[in-house]
Amino acid sequence: MALTLSQRSAQYTTSPIRDLLKLIEQPGIISLAGGLPAAGSFPVDALRAACAEVFDTQAQGALQYGPSEGIAPLREWVAAQLREQGIAAQADEVLITSGSQQGLDLVGRVLIDPGSTVLVERPTYLGALQAFAPYGPCFADLDDDAQGALPTLNAPAHRDARMVYLQPNFRNPTGQTLTAARRAQWARALQDRPIALVEDNPYGELWFDGPPPAPLAAQLPGQSILLGTFSKVLSPGLRLGYVHGPQEVIAKMAQARQAADLQTSSLTQRLVLKVLEGRLLDAQLPRIRALYRSQRDAMLAALERHMPETVRWEAPQGGMFIWLSLPEGADATALLPLALARKVAYVPGTAFYAAGTAPRNTLRLSYATATPEQIDTAIAHLGDVFSQTQVRPLTEGVLNL
Amino acid sequence: MALTLSQRSAQYTTSPIRDLLKLIEQPGIISLAGGLPAAGSFPVDALRAACAEVFDTQAQGALQYGPSEGIAPLREWVAAQLREQGIAAQADEVLITSGSQQGLDLVGRVLIDPGSTVLVERPTYLGALQAFAPYGPCFADLDDDAQGALPTLNAPAHRDARMVYLQPNFRNPTGQTLTAARRAQWARALQDRPIALVEDNPYGELWFDGPPPAPLAAQLPGQSILLGTFSKVLSPGLRLGYVHGPQEVIAKMAQARQAADLQTSSLTQRLVLKVLEGRLLDAQLPRIRALYRSQRDAMLAALERHMPETVRWEAPQGGMFIWLSLPEGADATALLPLALARKVAYVPGTAFYAAGTAPRNTLRLSYATATPEQIDTAIAHLGDVFSQTQVRPLTEGVLNL
Repeated sequence: MALTLSQRSAQYTTSPIRDLLKLIEQPGIISLAGGLPAAGSFPVDALRAACAEVFDTQAQGALQYGPSEGIAPLREWVAAQLREQGIAAQADEVLITSGSQQGLDLVGRVLIDPGSTVLVERPTYLGALQAFAPYGPCFADLDDDAQGALPTLNAPAHRDARMVYLQPNFRNPTGQTLTAARRAQWARALQDRPIALVEDNPYGELWFDGPPPAPLAAQLPGQSILLGTFSKVLSPGLRLGYVHGPQEVIAKMAQARQAADLQTSSLTQRLVLKVLEGRLLDAQLPRIRALYRSQRDAMLAALERHMPETVRWEAPQGGMFIWLSLPEGADATALLPLALARKVAYVPGTAFYAAGTAPRNTLRLSYATATPEQIDTAIAHLGDVFSQTQVRPLTEGVLNL
Repeated sequence: MALTLSQRSAQYTTSPIRDLLKLIEQPGIISLAGGLPAAGSFPVDALRAACAEVFDTQAQGALQYGPSEGIAPLREWVAAQLREQGIAAQADEVLITSGSQQGLDLVGRVLIDPGSTVLVERPTYLGALQAFAPYGPCFADLDDDAQGALPTLNAPAHRDARMVYLQPNFRNPTGQTLTAARRAQWARALQDRPIALVEDNPYGELWFDGPPPAPLAAQLPGQSILLGTFSKVLSPGLRLGYVHGPQEVIAKMAQARQAADLQTSSLTQRLVLKVLEGRLLDAQLPRIRALYRSQRDAMLAALERHMPETVRWEAPQGGMFIWLSLPEGADATALLPLALARKVAYVPGTAFYAAGTAPRNTLRLSYATATPEQIDTAIAHLGDVFSQTQVRPLTEGVLNL
């Protein structure tokens, strides 16, 4: 007897990225697809030692139920770290989550009604679209210019927005960063409007030449929900992130959290707190910034070397991704099998568009996982693939990301 | 500028139990309220050793992203364990969750539409009501007799049921177990109806004199969703559970999982798999069964000793809870402050009723957390409190749980 699934279930679809990740588990594939941190980036020794110490000194706490909001000293650590970035954060405005993805789900639970207008960058993070979609929003795209997404809150399609979702730092998938001037424009535009600013910041610490501008949340107290994670700086497998926001929103999210899965693992919270208190990040952050910078440099050099002239990209100043634009008429999805035949994987750009028609000529490359040598090999293959396709000459202004 | 919360947010309310747990963190309070496993029940040494081994032999896997469905060998372990209980389970019918509460949320996401009729025992598990409520079900209560909930699927209020939620073993809050005969009746009643049976089994391994009857899922292949957890047998702080069900339902839940929080911690999955493969449960289960049996015995003896004659209860054959019925007219919620003044906490029964009017004269006692000595002290105080209240004499048949 077949069971009836909820209508909501139609909103749950498999992520093309996670499907691709399964495909590329074949030996010999060089993946430029997923945003998996480089294996060498994990601080294994520090985490092993911290875990042993947690079991030696606080095993009962690590194995017992704990508060849905997260353990108090970890909430305080996050608040202190946000205060250093200019946000007047208190511990009771912080909720510990099982990774940023859960923060996005809690945002959807607590802030989105069926039909709520949610403004997103174009293109935007696929995982946010997946998290929000089951709550029934109407997505509306924001246009970009060189400074980032434009605060067009008076546009007819944007006027009734309930929420704006932005990744100001090294946006996934484009790598773009919102300039300080554009942040100020956003803050002015949002002030005195009942619109929640959801500021997703997984990559902010992965800057290469200098830190990005201060979070928008610093300029919009009481109106900002800021999402952070330890996935990119420590380990994604631990599943630890946080949400900061107005105390009444965080309290409601904690209630939603009780319904969703009670709490984040007491063990992983204590483990991460232990390495944070030991100031592991003081050494870890410079190390991984240097690592990802060298991999970005390798990819930029390889792109210069191997790509046909018709392919365009911008150099990201941090994060994990480079966004490629093939000439108009090229189809990055159709070309993917040719790339996979050369044992190289990437993510076609169409997955990252919320509304409107997605251009078919874009793709996302990650320099986070592969070594510089692998990156050069992979980009050489992609250069071959993209050169051999029939492409029309690039006309300025045709490419609209 | 106040933000607009979703209408769904009104469904997220704080759990009276978790609120009570905060209250009773005061020193000196003996808690018979929460279902917290006894601290002495945690296999600390085995988990500490397994954790060290995971870091020594598979640190990269433990710290990296993994599949949303859970790691393959843990899914296989669960499937094998279910096969031992008569369920023809395969690994791809198993989803690893961050505790059973997440399994309940995934059930809600994938099986409940607004207005779907969901049948529940009366009283039933508060956490399931909290998990399902945001998805908009209409709850309908099932009546009990001495064998457990009655399969009244032809009753007008039950005829259009989408789903039945049962806790066949040592139900939270009543401690009652569905007899083998009643399970067979349920299986016959559900067969050939498009109704999902959601069988929640957190306490099944905590039996005292003999194992409970086989899961209903063994008799209803293709129609059953079975929820299990390692919280009661290993540690709730690790947050590890599982769902078994038809492959197409599990696949949809895995997609929902991607949207919700991607996956369960790679570290905690490997840690638990390691102790399971080391056959820790062979020693752990007899140990905790004996522990909880001794605490149940202490509570039953204390109840006999200290309770006025007007108070009634049944002896549970496993699990963590004893359900008390005060005389009609007594109000367990109103009496709670008197108990707290004596430094004893319990949970009033009203929280566990989904529909209809909740009787005010019931309460749940947990023997899981306190020692036998503490249990005797606490029950003596409760006996005083319940004796001093004005109670009408108990009339047979008035108490309807």
